[in-house]
Amino acid sequence: MHDEYFMDFALKLAAVGAGQTSPNPVVGAVIAKDGDVVGFGAHLRAGSPHAEVHAINMAGENAGGSTMYVTLEPCNHFGNTPPCTMAILNAGIKKVVVATLDPNPIVAGTGVAKLKNSGIEVEVGLCEAEAMNLNKAYLYFMKQKLPFVSLKQAITLDGKIATVHGRNENITGKEVQEDVHRKRARTDAILVGVGTVLKDDPLLTNRFAESKKQPIRIILDTYLRTPINAKVVTDQATQTWIVVGREVTSDQITSFAQANVQIIQLKTKTIAIQDVLQELARRNIVTLYVEGGQRINTSFINSGLVNEMITYIAPKIVGDHDGIGMLEDLDVKNMAEAVPLKLQKVDRIGDVIKVISRVGGSVCSQELLRQKEK
Amino acid sequence: MHDEYFMDFALKLAAVGAGQTSPNPVVGAVIAKDGDVVGFGAHLRAGSPHAEVHAINMAGENAGGSTMYVTLEPCNHFGNTPPCTMAILNAGIKKVVVATLDPNPIVAGTGVAKLKNSGIEVEVGLCEAEAMNLNKAYLYFMKQKLPFVSLKQAITLDGKIATVHGRNENITGKEVQEDVHRKRARTDAILVGVGTVLKDDPLLTNRFAESKKQPIRIILDTYLRTPINAKVVTDQATQTWIVVGREVTSDQITSFAQANVQIIQLKTKTIAIQDVLQELARRNIVTLYVEGGQRINTSFINSGLVNEMITYIAPKIVGDHDGIGMLEDLDVKNMAEAVPLKLQKVDRIGDVIKVISRVGGSVCSQELLRQKEK
Repeated sequence: MHDEYFMDFALKLAAVGAGQTSPNPVVGAVIAKDGDVVGFGAHLRAGSPHAEVHAINMAGENAGGSTMYVTLEPCNHFGNTPPCTMAILNAGIKKVVVATLDPNPIVAGTGVAKLKNSGIEVEVGLCEAEAMNLNKAYLYFMKQKLPFVSLKQAITLDGKIATVHGRNENITGKEVQEDVHRKRARTDAILVGVGTVLKDDPLLTNRFAESKKQPIRIILDTYLRTPINAKVVTDQATQTWIVVGREVTSDQITSFAQANVQIIQLKTKTIAIQDVLQELARRNIVTLYVEGGQRINTSFINSGLVNEMITYIAPKIVGDHDGIGMLEDLDVKNMAEAVPLKLQKVDRIGDVIKVISRVGGSVCSQELLRQKEK
Repeated sequence: MHDEYFMDFALKLAAVGAGQTSPNPVVGAVIAKDGDVVGFGAHLRAGSPHAEVHAINMAGENAGGSTMYVTLEPCNHFGNTPPCTMAILNAGIKKVVVATLDPNPIVAGTGVAKLKNSGIEVEVGLCEAEAMNLNKAYLYFMKQKLPFVSLKQAITLDGKIATVHGRNENITGKEVQEDVHRKRARTDAILVGVGTVLKDDPLLTNRFAESKKQPIRIILDTYLRTPINAKVVTDQATQTWIVVGREVTSDQITSFAQANVQIIQLKTKTIAIQDVLQELARRNIVTLYVEGGQRINTSFINSGLVNEMITYIAPKIVGDHDGIGMLEDLDVKNMAEAVPLKLQKVDRIGDVIKVISRVGGSVCSQELLRQKEK
């Protein structure tokens, strides 16, 4: 019972870093001695000290002969900071309880091995499911070499994201906008299609959240139709990456030689979602927030690479005649073949219903299922 | 405070009769004397004693000099039972506190007038909003001479009620089916269009609820295309009323001379929802549960005569290409003109989200608003 109490506290500490440690995982650590907490810490930002080090510093001389509870395997390499295994050994800690291993190839069991070989007692697996859930994006990224994809839509109760008549139509109001911007601040990158840029000319920045963090803007734009005076090009608040197909010429690309615009040219004529995600993973995008229209939504769902859908349902109805649905062709032969979702959370934001669901049958959901079964 | 305590108890008693007293309202009554409850009752079924009588019977001699709290104005006429005003006078009750007046033309203030004229102290309006909400269908029916319309749909998260490929497609599963049948048991009539009969051949009976009550089945069928061997025609569990246009011949009608089928012929070529609802109100249908497809949903929303929408959102997605939306043409010129809803309740039934909303801008919502402001 005591072990779980300390690990639960470490998990709560780790959660404080959610959305602010990327590309690093969140980690919490607690040091206990004779049943008392003598130190604790969390990893708060990439480049800053790890959770273990904060906890050891707080414990001071009490670390000697103590037990450490840490939500993720301690690192065993020199990165921005020295290896945590070394700090643990130097502090004279007797036992380390780890919630889950770190699949990062530069850790991947070597942390635990180092501790064991140095004569420290190590246990792995306490509260593992909670620990994995806390770092689900990081773990997915490390294992699949793909960003964790959140697909967002704001829809009417009858499933419309817009009308055929309008542009820049607000469906959900200010409270939801704030919720969306909070998510933007906690995400490495936002993605839209060029259609959204041409239709709505959005800024795609975080302008409401307390945090001033800005995600990178990513535009899928096969033929590089993004106007040179689009806000995503001229605005300097953050970088913009435009993903284009092979038919785009170097002259076209040169015209975008702006400080904050980077063109990512694929080797294929059209853009496959899997290729985009691999390119983004290579550039250390761990979390991706997709805010596209019908085409982008459909491509992502059909790719099988959506980890979660975030759907805001507004209290209004439009009808098929005037509305544009959130999805186009999913090749559904009958209702039994509809793409299944697994509800994770249903909340109300004022008069809007917020639904977070997992996309069943997708690569991601199978991966997550497998992780859970482990 | 005491007054509110007793009236609140009376309201709770009234609620027990919800869905089982039609075409009568639900009513609760509490008799208090010197701060003690000495009797209480509720109206439970049309034709059985009123709440006031049950309460007086329970109070016995204690009724003399007491105060009665009743959620609806006592009746003053001989119906299935003698007038409650007479029972109140005979019992020697000194004061009557009424939550709200009964708009039924055979009551409509005469109950209160009778009591006052007989020297009883009468107060009206305590907890009136709650009392009106409890009888919202009855009050709407009495004032508008129209049934209270609940429009139900089961949809996917992207707003589809079916695919273009299938028939009799189950979207939501057994738990929702039970919830729907419970609602059927508490409703005077169910309505569908002939399209649903032709496509799915449904029974439209309550087969899951604890109550064995069956709603009347109503089919909107302009040209009387309902097959003579459709389940709604052959099944004897309850009556079926088929509403047809004027072009249907008497020969056609004669062929439906079944014991449990009644043809209601309108004077118009096509069927207007308002005419249907007036016909049903004349036949004492107080509550109507509309379980139609896209055409029926659209006609009802466009009529402005829907009191509430009950929407079951299933965790799956289908896409515009293969799906049929819940609504067709609402003549929405842009998103700002979308038909507004007012969320009443959001629940989860397993993995399905149940949303009850009021349709803004409709005749009903204005009427209910007006009632509330009163």
